[in-house]
Amino acid sequence: MLDASNEREAFDRDHFFHPSTHMGTHARGESPTRVITGAEGVRITDATGRTHVDAFAGLYCVNAGYGRTEIADAIAKQAHELAYYHAYVGHGTDASIQLSKMIIDRAPEHMSRVYFGLSGSDANETNIKLIWFYNNVLGRPEKKKIISRWRGYHGSGVMTGSLTGLQLFHNAFDLPRAPILHTVSPYYFRRQDRSMSEAQFSQYCADQLEEMILAEGPDTVAAFIGEPVLGTGGIVPPPAGYWQKIQAVLDKYDVMLVADEVVTGFGRLGSMFGSDHYGMKPDLITIAKGLTSAYAPLSGSIVSKRMWDGLVSGVDELGAFGHGWTYSAHPICAAAGVANLKLIDDLALIDNVREVGPYFLAGLKDALEGHANVGEVRGEGLLAAVEFVADKDDRRFFDASEKVGPKIAAALFERGVIGRAMPEGDILGFAPPFCLTKEDADLIVAKTKEAVRHVLG
Amino acid sequence: MLDASNEREAFDRDHFFHPSTHMGTHARGESPTRVITGAEGVRITDATGRTHVDAFAGLYCVNAGYGRTEIADAIAKQAHELAYYHAYVGHGTDASIQLSKMIIDRAPEHMSRVYFGLSGSDANETNIKLIWFYNNVLGRPEKKKIISRWRGYHGSGVMTGSLTGLQLFHNAFDLPRAPILHTVSPYYFRRQDRSMSEAQFSQYCADQLEEMILAEGPDTVAAFIGEPVLGTGGIVPPPAGYWQKIQAVLDKYDVMLVADEVVTGFGRLGSMFGSDHYGMKPDLITIAKGLTSAYAPLSGSIVSKRMWDGLVSGVDELGAFGHGWTYSAHPICAAAGVANLKLIDDLALIDNVREVGPYFLAGLKDALEGHANVGEVRGEGLLAAVEFVADKDDRRFFDASEKVGPKIAAALFERGVIGRAMPEGDILGFAPPFCLTKEDADLIVAKTKEAVRHVLG
Ligand SMILES: Cc1ncc(COP(=O)(O)O)c(C=O)c1O
Ligand SMILES: Cc1ncc(COP(=O)(O)O)c(C=O)c1O
Repeated sequence: MLDASNEREAFDRDHFFHPSTHMGTHARGESPTRVITGAEGVRITDATGRTHVDAFAGLYCVNAGYGRTEIADAIAKQAHELAYYHAYVGHGTDASIQLSKMIIDRAPEHMSRVYFGLSGSDANETNIKLIWFYNNVLGRPEKKKIISRWRGYHGSGVMTGSLTGLQLFHNAFDLPRAPILHTVSPYYFRRQDRSMSEAQFSQYCADQLEEMILAEGPDTVAAFIGEPVLGTGGIVPPPAGYWQKIQAVLDKYDVMLVADEVVTGFGRLGSMFGSDHYGMKPDLITIAKGLTSAYAPLSGSIVSKRMWDGLVSGVDELGAFGHGWTYSAHPICAAAGVANLKLIDDLALIDNVREVGPYFLAGLKDALEGHANVGEVRGEGLLAAVEFVADKDDRRFFDASEKVGPKIAAALFERGVIGRAMPEGDILGFAPPFCLTKEDADLIVAKTKEAVRHVLG
Repeated sequence: MLDASNEREAFDRDHFFHPSTHMGTHARGESPTRVITGAEGVRITDATGRTHVDAFAGLYCVNAGYGRTEIADAIAKQAHELAYYHAYVGHGTDASIQLSKMIIDRAPEHMSRVYFGLSGSDANETNIKLIWFYNNVLGRPEKKKIISRWRGYHGSGVMTGSLTGLQLFHNAFDLPRAPILHTVSPYYFRRQDRSMSEAQFSQYCADQLEEMILAEGPDTVAAFIGEPVLGTGGIVPPPAGYWQKIQAVLDKYDVMLVADEVVTGFGRLGSMFGSDHYGMKPDLITIAKGLTSAYAPLSGSIVSKRMWDGLVSGVDELGAFGHGWTYSAHPICAAAGVANLKLIDDLALIDNVREVGPYFLAGLKDALEGHANVGEVRGEGLLAAVEFVADKDDRRFFDASEKVGPKIAAALFERGVIGRAMPEGDILGFAPPFCLTKEDADLIVAKTKEAVRHVLG
């Protein structure tokens, strides 16, 4: 379509408002346009013919890997048979019904129904509305506050960006907004009191949460939302015992748990869901990315039996439920989901996560833990992060203006591997497709070591 | 996949949380599951083999008509070449860049850039964030309120559901929320003072808006949002002179205009955009449905040159723009958009809207205006509505509990035609695919007449 790459770049600069991009430098042509043209397995190719190992699977979403004919075929078939019909007032398609069943079969036992959206953000938006509706139905109109955590990531909308606990997503947007509150981040490496053990720190997090609930009044606190493993906030597995202790506080005050499994759902930790992995008992689970491996936009809110029963009793009393997206349960997206979940099973890709994930993490630790500026190498399943510090013994961080994380990510990119400089702190994140081989894991580790040496010596 | 229809229905009832559905009756099997299996042109077919003329084009979105091989082929091709890569930090694909250019070519002259989302709701969410960011950049942090209209529909999120001015979407969700305000609906047929002419009523609407802006303080009011033709609120074209008068008030107080063209964009009124159709000068245009004819989920916010310049200056000063959806500018959805807009041109479908739209409306008027319970037959382009009243001379409405609108829609459905009972009032809405023929228009009119007779005599 776009023959001359000059023309393509001009169109891009002049008309395309990219997400999460510095618009000024991009529009002025000071930062490059990068046009992706093809991909296979863990590798992507751009319009200049360069190929990279994508060790972040897009935005940790292409879990099944690129170029999966099975999923593309399912999309093509559905597009030709029936590209669209809505799912309002009891309408469905074979794919959307089948996928509902497949999701509930895989979800923790007490889950009951799935509401489909398009993005992780809109699924959390739905969750907020479900929580408020539910508490109105139960006759507790004051119980509406939602507690999230600093460094949580839950979306980019007005309310979901408020749930998000990262400065970059609040700046100049007047976020966060009420009734969203933030409690302490379960980030052991960055704990203030370094004398604490992991178990003590988990207790501290639970105590802080309990204090906040008591200070606000338990009758005003509806829910707590958290990613099983902190993602965009730094790729941080929870400290030992964290979720047990948090769950106990929530149960004590009848505060619902929303497990945001947009990243962890469908296998990234080596378990089908992070909730099962850590013994969480959510009333709502947010899903997106891994549901379709990003082959088509699809998200969902999985609703517990308890919550569903409450919602139904409300609708029986109040009448129809006024919540819908035109593209909820879009047939093509549902077909992509069915084919993707089937492929993940057929190729036993979650077994591969359990096998190659620890291998990759061990490789990273082995290569980097000895470096004077590597503060921590951590991970779970096929999620891993390397955190850089100015001084290891003092755990002194670099100044953000030095851009150490971005520089290392850039040096790694020059070496043919895509990792992600996480937005807060100097943290290099990895979340490769589930089909990662040990050879490619070795390659990523070797190139990372080179990149770190290049930037930090 | 789902062989036995019994099994399918059980999965559906037990696991699928449908949007905008009465969950109780559906889960208990008191209302039918309707599985759609195929479609062609203006007709859809369900799993029982029944075929209907879809005179609402899904949810007024399948503008190009069903079964378009050209769009399905484009989706299939993109799915096989590159199903996904993100658009963050200046990344793109041929399709997303091409589509940006095609949109700006079609948009009103002063528009500059397009930000892609998935749903009309998330595009309006983006708009709210852009408006706030822009006014923060311009150093007017107090200018944040957004005025919408009663009966407007702008989405189902927490904030976008607040923009929406319909009771059904607020009920039990604690909406609307600040800083969203609602002014009078430009609904001439339902005006309070029936002595007003259309022009007087338009002046009244503008005066009411000005009063609200003055009462709130112009320094606190950032934007006004409206659909060129009210859609879900009742399919109501604006009274004569409305947009000129509104635009003058907005200009006077430096209040930005958001034209929500999710329904009207890309030809539904017989013009490419409703903004051009009515001479509106928006700073933001919301697009979705018609952009892809629903073949894949894609929305957008079209940003004016003026706003873009403000945003860029903000980013130059404040740093990166922290707003992104993982699936923004999804390659498959962008490819569907490119193929769809091309097809709309190639088949001159907007010319057909201009031709068959007035023919269809004239047919409806001819068949129904004489009926004692038909208060108004109205429309613009390929949007039309029939509004029912208990008494025509008194303009007395039926009680909602009588469900006159839903009953007529059901009777029409029984006769093989899908219209939509709009949520507030007894209004039967039509928004057929752009490829509607005069023969099918005649058929819809005839069946509507029968259905009205069946219910109201
Ligand atoms: C945990 C989590 N929740 C929600 C989201 C938002 O998803 P989306 O970008 O699809 O809106 C993300 C995206 O990265 C995420 O990581
Ligand atoms: C004018 C308008 N804006 C926004 C929306 C919301 O779009 P979506 O359902 O894709 O979120 C709609 C949906 O009908 C609409 O008609």
